[in-house]
Amino acid sequence: MSISMYAASVPVFRQMLGSLVAIIGKAEAYAAERKIEPTVLLQSRLFPDMLPLVRQVQIACDFATGVTARLAGQDVPAYDDQEQGFEQLRDRLQRTLAFLDTVDAARFDGSEDCEILTRPGTPKERRFSGQDYLLTYGLPQFFFHVTTAYALLRHNGVEIGKRDYMGAY
Amino acid sequence: MSISMYAASVPVFRQMLGSLVAIIGKAEAYAAERKIEPTVLLQSRLFPDMLPLVRQVQIACDFATGVTARLAGQDVPAYDDQEQGFEQLRDRLQRTLAFLDTVDAARFDGSEDCEILTRPGTPKERRFSGQDYLLTYGLPQFFFHVTTAYALLRHNGVEIGKRDYMGAY
Repeated sequence: MSISMYAASVPVFRQMLGSLVAIIGKAEAYAAERKIEPTVLLQSRLFPDMLPLVRQVQIACDFATGVTARLAGQDVPAYDDQEQGFEQLRDRLQRTLAFLDTVDAARFDGSEDCEILTRPGTPKERRFSGQDYLLTYGLPQFFFHVTTAYALLRHNGVEIGKRDYMGAY
Repeated sequence: MSISMYAASVPVFRQMLGSLVAIIGKAEAYAAERKIEPTVLLQSRLFPDMLPLVRQVQIACDFATGVTARLAGQDVPAYDDQEQGFEQLRDRLQRTLAFLDTVDAARFDGSEDCEILTRPGTPKERRFSGQDYLLTYGLPQFFFHVTTAYALLRHNGVEIGKRDYMGAY
């Protein structure tokens, strides 16, 4: 009569990160074809005080990694966010996908009731049940950054469509 | 050891549609303050062949309504998509929220295993389990249109931030 915490997280992250790998590949081809400096796309923003494409992708990876690790009761792997080119960004996505593959679905059992503390010790500290953390925080944040990465590239003329966003489902 | 199909759908839709109500309100105030014709924002697009803001909001409502109704085994309510102003668009969001409130959580019991057929009789016909329909299709689609609506307004200078997108959680 219900779904597992694992099913509602890791396969969703995998689907959307897989689609980002392909989308970033199309952006790279588009830049090469039109002799656009990769940085122009990677540093593009929808508004001056929004984050650029490269950060949107990094943060999408961070949410996939962080939510997965916390729900599985594991340490959150740290990355140095040094990606500067398309290839490095795809590599970041692939490393994130590889991390998701290492996590055992059984570790998510009972995670809906575990306590998750975000930004501990800061004014933004927040306590969640595992279920609320995933559904009301982690998934909305993750989809925000995936969709914004897509929107940024679409806005810059890369020929991608909803099918690219949806990935393999 | 798991979460309900209801918890993974209706409260998520409610959170994000509630945030869209507030975001559309801020867009309306922004347009009024700067004497921008509402249509300019409502018909704005991130790229010429992308859908405009008004359609992004309507489609977000459609996914919330359609996924909820199908999983609850109810008829999908039809709307005529005639909204043309900010107030009408907020009203559409409020009607969608009111519909979500009418659906009994108990109707979702067992919906993870039900069969969902999308676009029946068309070349795009697709058969899902209820679980796959929600997690691999409904939620990604829903978040796509909510985030794109946000991105469109952000791109047009409306002063909104991640907090507005996240809504009450």
